[in-house]
Amino acid sequence: MNKEYVLKITEAAKAFKAGKMKSSVAGKAVAMMFLENSTRTKCSFELAAKRLGLHVLDFEASKSSFSKGETLVDTLHNLYFIGVEAVVIRSSENGLLEKTQSELKYPIKLVNAGEGNLSHPTQALLDFMTMTEKLDTVEGKKIVIAGDIKHSRVAYSNIELLANFGADLHLCAPDCFKDESIKNVTWHDNLTEAITDANVVMMLRIQFERHETGEQPQNTEKFRLTSELLKKRAPSAILMHPGPVNRDVEISSELLDNDKGITILEQAGNGTFVRMAVLQEVLSG
Amino acid sequence: MNKEYVLKITEAAKAFKAGKMKSSVAGKAVAMMFLENSTRTKCSFELAAKRLGLHVLDFEASKSSFSKGETLVDTLHNLYFIGVEAVVIRSSENGLLEKTQSELKYPIKLVNAGEGNLSHPTQALLDFMTMTEKLDTVEGKKIVIAGDIKHSRVAYSNIELLANFGADLHLCAPDCFKDESIKNVTWHDNLTEAITDANVVMMLRIQFERHETGEQPQNTEKFRLTSELLKKRAPSAILMHPGPVNRDVEISSELLDNDKGITILEQAGNGTFVRMAVLQEVLSG
Amino acid sequence: MNKEYVLKITEAAKAFKAGKMKSSVAGKAVAMMFLENSTRTKCSFELAAKRLGLHVLDFEASKSSFSKGETLVDTLHNLYFIGVEAVVIRSSENGLLEKTQSELKYPIKLVNAGEGNLSHPTQALLDFMTMTEKLDTVEGKKIVIAGDIKHSRVAYSNIELLANFGADLHLCAPDCFKDESIKNVTWHDNLTEAITDANVVMMLRIQFERHETGEQPQNTEKFRLTSELLKKRAPSAILMHPGPVNRDVEISSELLDNDKGITILEQAGNGTFVRMAVLQEVLSG
Repeated sequence: MNKEYVLKITEAAKAFKAGKMKSSVAGKAVAMMFLENSTRTKCSFELAAKRLGLHVLDFEASKSSFSKGETLVDTLHNLYFIGVEAVVIRSSENGLLEKTQSELKYPIKLVNAGEGNLSHPTQALLDFMTMTEKLDTVEGKKIVIAGDIKHSRVAYSNIELLANFGADLHLCAPDCFKDESIKNVTWHDNLTEAITDANVVMMLRIQFERHETGEQPQNTEKFRLTSELLKKRAPSAILMHPGPVNRDVEISSELLDNDKGITILEQAGNGTFVRMAVLQEVLSG
Repeated sequence: MNKEYVLKITEAAKAFKAGKMKSSVAGKAVAMMFLENSTRTKCSFELAAKRLGLHVLDFEASKSSFSKGETLVDTLHNLYFIGVEAVVIRSSENGLLEKTQSELKYPIKLVNAGEGNLSHPTQALLDFMTMTEKLDTVEGKKIVIAGDIKHSRVAYSNIELLANFGADLHLCAPDCFKDESIKNVTWHDNLTEAITDANVVMMLRIQFERHETGEQPQNTEKFRLTSELLKKRAPSAILMHPGPVNRDVEISSELLDNDKGITILEQAGNGTFVRMAVLQEVLSG
Repeated sequence: MNKEYVLKITEAAKAFKAGKMKSSVAGKAVAMMFLENSTRTKCSFELAAKRLGLHVLDFEASKSSFSKGETLVDTLHNLYFIGVEAVVIRSSENGLLEKTQSELKYPIKLVNAGEGNLSHPTQALLDFMTMTEKLDTVEGKKIVIAGDIKHSRVAYSNIELLANFGADLHLCAPDCFKDESIKNVTWHDNLTEAITDANVVMMLRIQFERHETGEQPQNTEKFRLTSELLKKRAPSAILMHPGPVNRDVEISSELLDNDKGITILEQAGNGTFVRMAVLQEVLSG
């Protein structure tokens, strides 16, 4: 996502939120193809689509011709001819969207709703929207992302987006959750040190379901966020998490329920508006 | 449910049925969260919502973040911020709604679509609507509820509502299906005796799926309704059942298909209008 | 389906496709009851219904009162009273629709979305629409249907419809897939011979899921369509398949992706318009 696209989507999302933008794509059809579980992303994409006046089809793989051996590309071609102009896809398979896009012969649009541990663009967009609402800009801000970075598509998409906008990125994780291939960031082993003077503290969910056997996290309690640790952050710093939260695993319940800077639910709320903007953009194109 | 609420909902439902009331809540969003199987209740809630012009999200627990360990309250908070103003919940767990309501920090509305064997308010409302359509009033009327009372949320909600309106309540059940804690009713062991001069005979479904091991009903044939037994009822008496019926278990097929006083399908029909009224009320509040 | 009905539906479907027909049934409700997997048929029926402005309920048998033992007829009666005027049914059970129709006591409409290996009327209608778009008429045209005829509801519905319109029908199948009870057609053992001068070549999916044990197809490679074989067809002949395709089983990938006469995706596209016409007709009746 280049800066221009990010700014365009964020601006449109804020306009939808303020009630100043209307749908220009009513009557078109989209399909929801969630091959992995989801609450926030699926509900907000679906509500976004319905608010835009789109017809929404819920494509359930287990009840489809996938079970008769049809390929994803053949299914998408059929959906396109049936009248579906965009498909919102969530999948656990890294690279599925790029591979599928390269094989498509018709202009059905693919909208990434989370792909393996690779990318989750609309999450990064709604996080960016939330940060700019709270901090005006991310440029030069100290943004800490902490936790299970290696298995987090949220982290990868946020890091890519935020780097483009000149954020000062700090990553903190136990060794088993590090990915040293991420460049132009500052790595930390110590959460207190990472948090010191941070403007944004983004905690990640430990993605138990993506861990391979024997890859059990150790010493994760060192990376659990508590109110004591948070005292080191900058004044007015915000505390983010993409949800769902493992309460008292990566973050204490006390913080979740009481911290003044917490934005978890506002992030979820912005998700609906960001997805309205994304769907309107993709269907207007 | 106090009398004022019951009368308000019933009046609104009758107005929707007569085509004299319009939606005042179009464009709002509700989620359906059916954690237990349902045909009548789910379909009529969903159609009610769509007729009101609501956006309807179908929340499937098995495909949600419940499977990642998110709590119901956290899920509801997220749905509220995403834009969902009410959630229609069916659950097998007694007390879930009250407990959840007490923990909510945001004003998302919970609509009870059947809770364990405890309560099923919209069923009692549609039964009340049906009775008043047929008998004008329930006050002083002899109303017999017979069958698996102990496991029937329909029974508990009806008894509570009807007692408020001065009905003459008679309950009839085999010992294994009795609940002696229900007060201010007349208990019967003999179905013929119970039915004599009754204005309403409400048969209940035997809730096989809620019986614990060893709690198998015995002598239930003594409590099977037949046309012979029904001869004792009052003239113009009606025959009700919440559905689904176990044909020839609690009621004979012959009666189901031919009895002049049977209201089973009219009850289902009134359900849609009652649920339109309930959703409109809860979303206007 | 008599000729008059087929022509009426096809004409309406073409008018919907051309944007010259509007819905006259908006605000009514239909239920989708797919007791067997489906992609094309379910998605296009659902999109058709939504484009007509219908309220669409997705009836999932496994989450319904079927699991509590309610009969299909009782369920349909309830849906009718709840407000559902038509139910789109797909089932693996031959004869289910006729049997159910004969038992219904209320005028809820049943729409056949594929029944066992017996019939699939909307598929035959969309195939007819596609043929007449491409060939103007089917009268006197050589139409070859090849493959797993015995297990194909698509074949049976097409044969019945096309015979009514005076098509010259040729069937080609391995012995294990033949059904000698089909009359007034020319049977072939040799695909090349069958295809010679054909105006339409309709390949069928091998219905592995409907084969009984020991009924494994043999020598099916003799019945796999390749570009070499297709050279014998008439000029401008079209190549049809109802989908989903088993790539390189009944038809080569090369043909699927490159043949000039292939209409598979156009068939899927016409399905949406045919189903709009069918739903509008059934709900206007």
